[in-house]
Amino acid sequence: MIQITVIQIDNYGPWTVTPNPRRESDLQALQSKLYEDLNLMFGMYGGLVFYTRFDNLIAITNGINLEIHKKIQESVRNRYPFTISMTIASAETPYEAQLLATKTLQEYGSAQDSNRREVLDIANELVDGYVQIAHIDINNITGTLTDVCSTYDTYFKVNMVKLKLMEEFLKYGALLFFIGGDNFMAPSNGMGEEEYLKIFDKIKMDYNIELKAGIGIGKNAEEAANLADIGLEEIRGKRVDKNICILKNENFFKNINKKGKIYGI
Amino acid sequence: MIQITVIQIDNYGPWTVTPNPRRESDLQALQSKLYEDLNLMFGMYGGLVFYTRFDNLIAITNGINLEIHKKIQESVRNRYPFTISMTIASAETPYEAQLLATKTLQEYGSAQDSNRREVLDIANELVDGYVQIAHIDINNITGTLTDVCSTYDTYFKVNMVKLKLMEEFLKYGALLFFIGGDNFMAPSNGMGEEEYLKIFDKIKMDYNIELKAGIGIGKNAEEAANLADIGLEEIRGKRVDKNICILKNENFFKNINKKGKIYGI
Amino acid sequence: MIQITVIQIDNYGPWTVTPNPRRESDLQALQSKLYEDLNLMFGMYGGLVFYTRFDNLIAITNGINLEIHKKIQESVRNRYPFTISMTIASAETPYEAQLLATKTLQEYGSAQDSNRREVLDIANELVDGYVQIAHIDINNITGTLTDVCSTYDTYFKVNMVKLKLMEEFLKYGALLFFIGGDNFMAPSNGMGEEEYLKIFDKIKMDYNIELKAGIGIGKNAEEAANLADIGLEEIRGKRVDKNICILKNENFFKNINKKGKIYGI
Amino acid sequence: MIQITVIQIDNYGPWTVTPNPRRESDLQALQSKLYEDLNLMFGMYGGLVFYTRFDNLIAITNGINLEIHKKIQESVRNRYPFTISMTIASAETPYEAQLLATKTLQEYGSAQDSNRREVLDIANELVDGYVQIAHIDINNITGTLTDVCSTYDTYFKVNMVKLKLMEEFLKYGALLFFIGGDNFMAPSNGMGEEEYLKIFDKIKMDYNIELKAGIGIGKNAEEAANLADIGLEEIRGKRVDKNICILKNENFFKNINKKGKIYGI
Repeated sequence: MIQITVIQIDNYGPWTVTPNPRRESDLQALQSKLYEDLNLMFGMYGGLVFYTRFDNLIAITNGINLEIHKKIQESVRNRYPFTISMTIASAETPYEAQLLATKTLQEYGSAQDSNRREVLDIANELVDGYVQIAHIDINNITGTLTDVCSTYDTYFKVNMVKLKLMEEFLKYGALLFFIGGDNFMAPSNGMGEEEYLKIFDKIKMDYNIELKAGIGIGKNAEEAANLADIGLEEIRGKRVDKNICILKNENFFKNINKKGKIYGI
Repeated sequence: MIQITVIQIDNYGPWTVTPNPRRESDLQALQSKLYEDLNLMFGMYGGLVFYTRFDNLIAITNGINLEIHKKIQESVRNRYPFTISMTIASAETPYEAQLLATKTLQEYGSAQDSNRREVLDIANELVDGYVQIAHIDINNITGTLTDVCSTYDTYFKVNMVKLKLMEEFLKYGALLFFIGGDNFMAPSNGMGEEEYLKIFDKIKMDYNIELKAGIGIGKNAEEAANLADIGLEEIRGKRVDKNICILKNENFFKNINKKGKIYGI
Repeated sequence: MIQITVIQIDNYGPWTVTPNPRRESDLQALQSKLYEDLNLMFGMYGGLVFYTRFDNLIAITNGINLEIHKKIQESVRNRYPFTISMTIASAETPYEAQLLATKTLQEYGSAQDSNRREVLDIANELVDGYVQIAHIDINNITGTLTDVCSTYDTYFKVNMVKLKLMEEFLKYGALLFFIGGDNFMAPSNGMGEEEYLKIFDKIKMDYNIELKAGIGIGKNAEEAANLADIGLEEIRGKRVDKNICILKNENFFKNINKKGKIYGI
Repeated sequence: MIQITVIQIDNYGPWTVTPNPRRESDLQALQSKLYEDLNLMFGMYGGLVFYTRFDNLIAITNGINLEIHKKIQESVRNRYPFTISMTIASAETPYEAQLLATKTLQEYGSAQDSNRREVLDIANELVDGYVQIAHIDINNITGTLTDVCSTYDTYFKVNMVKLKLMEEFLKYGALLFFIGGDNFMAPSNGMGEEEYLKIFDKIKMDYNIELKAGIGIGKNAEEAANLADIGLEEIRGKRVDKNICILKNENFFKNINKKGKIYGI
């Protein structure tokens, strides 16, 4: 089971143009500051936030209880010109979890309902569960794209790959986020090695771009992401002979009553 | 003529995993802080930065001279664990300008060359020129997507539209960036009303998603973005009868020796 | 017992002038960002940081273990151009605790020893203990100073009061920090009501400035500061008839084996 | 003539306790973020801000016009849960300038008047003028205090020196701010070498603490602070044989019609 928190700035759109449209560089600064802060605050408890649409964010929050969510919600209220709503859900797959969380949020009213403020609710239950994250990057993007194509052309290619990855991962109930450079993170509880490889083959075939991924399985987002990073380093260091390296916190899994199947390990 | 600055974190990839992979929530916080700061600093001089790949960013910098660029470069050096390189170019179209700027940067060495630090150069010339920006959003996304679909499904649709917009704008030498929510900004010097409408028709046909855009033409990114925002408000307020509203700083254009043609106005 | 963490930027002074003196506005921005971050990160676990000398900071960290300190230390390493050292100690009084923590830090070498990096150590032991904080402010500073004297003259008076408070509190092993406006916070485990009043009388006599204080006693800095704030509101609301209001988390104290005497309650 | 801007958060005190006292770690984070931002934004135009009381700040703003002030004021409104007021004045001495600026601010109403928002006004006139800044530090504080005394005892001594310096500088119409570590900055237009030395002698006599100072005279705060820093490095490098080193941008002064006498140079 993965635990997902859906975060939404309350009534943000109207605020950005009231009474007049606010300076765009300020809004970009404001949104990225919120993203920074949420990562610092959730990160203190092993969580990880993805910027998604900046006003609607998705976080992996296994092990993070309601009280901590409340504290983060208050800290935003105390330091920002707006408030945020958050709903939490757990499920076998990340897609299912964010779907449940969103539904609970929507029950409280519209994102642009000026009376709906600071929702904080749990869709089903909080879990410890486990988190499986794939950290994917493009093989030698520096040599093949960054150093030879224009900044925007490389950016375009990265977006092309991103959308295709989003599409493919969705088939397995997995999410896919861009995390900068040529890096993607896919919260993908339950996926097996063959499934990742199949996706990468498709990308290779369609775009002639080769991907590799470290995959980490741990008790929360921080541990999973860290294991994924180490896996990626294993591939880069050619200490494994394929483009996938799955690492798992064995101690953790010995001691828990497994929730959610883990393929291919 | 639009002036574009290409910004690149020096040798960033290797740093993120040296000596060990750094915590992902910290890296996300760090990257978004840089983005925030660059917008605040360039914003103080009417510039606007797009996060692009976070380690490679694109900024509109008409009217911003080399000395100010140097100051921003130093400020990053003084406050971050890394340094940045910046190259500046001007051209009729944003695509051409970023291409020239990237080429100049690449001449100094690889993005992952540990000896290449703090490049600061001008590809051709600094210009005042003018900036044309389209601020595009999705009609009633709150009612049709945010409030009824899951957070990730809405995000997926927005990415789908984004990639298609990137593809279409590229045909006119224009760039397209996501700026949060359901909003996109297209630096698009030289494009005419019909061309925007043609793109929006294609999106409508392909995805059944309706777009509108305020288009601002001004002396720098801030002014253009502000006029674009006002244009968008005009459409929302139904004070214009189509999905496009172009606003131009007439005083500015009366007084300058126009560089670059401006269609459709 | 109060737990204090002493935080020191490693070899900061030399860095600020290497190879040339860095822009002062950047250094001020950098230092205040560090202070912001430390408060956000320690704050997530009920801690509270005082800026002190900005490169040497003092934090109240009851209930915060070594692992969390390590995480904060790493997060600074990951996002700043410098690293920090931290040592932790507990004692009956805040003064004694910071003294022990400092001694442990000094044993590792000089603040300007370029080989001493990222010290993390515990002087004696980590405790849950309790925290007693006085939140002091100046009666009607807005009417008597801010709105009638010059900004700097008010600032001067506040500094005069501050130094005298520091001097007086020190006699009881208590620390005193300025927290903005006309507000001071005194971590002051073990002090009794009469002792605070005696200090305020002295200030009244010497400077004709009247002080009041909410005093909170709780399981950590957050709880103590919150109770102190509520106490201050009680005085402002004239729901108590003197300039001191002590509030204590009774439930917490019922259940713990008290360490350190608590006077006057 | 020095130009000073007085910055005040509008109605801040009441906000911090409405509807309930806000978490102190959040308030500290918020205040230091504002200080960071103001330094980045004013710093982009050669200005320098001192944190003063955090809700009342003093900035040196020679060469910074009303439009830029307005932009900064808007940027705060766009990104913070509060607004700021700013008034600007110029005078022969920093003290006189901040006094005039404060008076203008006070004419608009109380700091805690909920109807007084976003004042922006000029007390007399904006000037280019010049800025004289002394950057003062304590000789060998690391060896004599930081590495041998407790963190708080060193902090106490620094505060003692600070208050005395404030008192002494005030006699010359100069201001004195702590800027971290063992560093102070004194905006001190018009003071001569002998006057600084006299103050340092007094400190030496009273507290047995030796001070030194680089003094910079330039067209704005950035240039003056930079020259002061270089002067301090000259003393540290024993390239001058006393504890004072005054550096002046000669080119600048050749070309301007001097306003305000400059002693001792």
